[in-house]
Amino acid sequence: MTDPAGMASDESALIAANAAFYAAFARRDADALDALWAEDVTVACIHPGWSPRIGREAVMESWRAIVANPGSPRIVPEEPVAVVLGAVGLVICYERLGNDTLVATNTFLRQNGAWRMVHHQASPLAEPRPRPVAAQPPQRRPGQVLH
Amino acid sequence: MTDPAGMASDESALIAANAAFYAAFARRDADALDALWAEDVTVACIHPGWSPRIGREAVMESWRAIVANPGSPRIVPEEPVAVVLGAVGLVICYERLGNDTLVATNTFLRQNGAWRMVHHQASPLAEPRPRPVAAQPPQRRPGQVLH
Repeated sequence: MTDPAGMASDESALIAANAAFYAAFARRDADALDALWAEDVTVACIHPGWSPRIGREAVMESWRAIVANPGSPRIVPEEPVAVVLGAVGLVICYERLGNDTLVATNTFLRQNGAWRMVHHQASPLAEPRPRPVAAQPPQRRPGQVLH
Repeated sequence: MTDPAGMASDESALIAANAAFYAAFARRDADALDALWAEDVTVACIHPGWSPRIGREAVMESWRAIVANPGSPRIVPEEPVAVVLGAVGLVICYERLGNDTLVATNTFLRQNGAWRMVHHQASPLAEPRPRPVAAQPPQRRPGQVLH
């Protein structure tokens, strides 16, 4: 990579795509969620405690069921960290659900200039969450881009 | 992608890299684990219940502690599914630890012709595991390659 400005832009766009995913979820907007997932590749999703859903149909079916369920929790993403690996980008973030915290990895593929989701995995956090952001070492700031 | 044979080979190599990761873990071989992780990019790891470890030093420190711990469980990978996205590959598999089952995503980056790990996330499985392999739909066979 010889384009630091372009790379920073890639990573900012990746963080924005990650935020758009959680915003669509917050709106319970299944169509917007659908539009965020990649086309023409195998996508997958591992919801907390679930076996993997593999393939677009199974993944979207799971999201439609979740957003249609009035008992589904609010999810607030926190401290996203973006890693760009060429045409693929990972965003690792915490997901705050009331008093519970999950840790998620959202994987994106660049398609037609946009970051589209190809995988989501969220896991429960069982250990105490690390210190607040201000006390974190430099590599763990919110929205930080790494390369 | 216009090279189906090359793609199948990519995916077979990806499944093999995933197997090599678990074999190194089974041998408690921290150096072999180290050699499997990518260089010169940000790598990350989310162990079950842990907060994310980000950066090669934090990731390898966690693996060295785990393999040095005689109480660490045996992990048997099962039903790996490979997805190749250009230079990045994902392997989703179950991890059997005695009577417990986790679900893991291992993410690899092709470096110098070899698949090297860039991310590992393992989550507990809380729902019943899907039907045995023989009863699975076609998209969920062990070692299957998807594209």
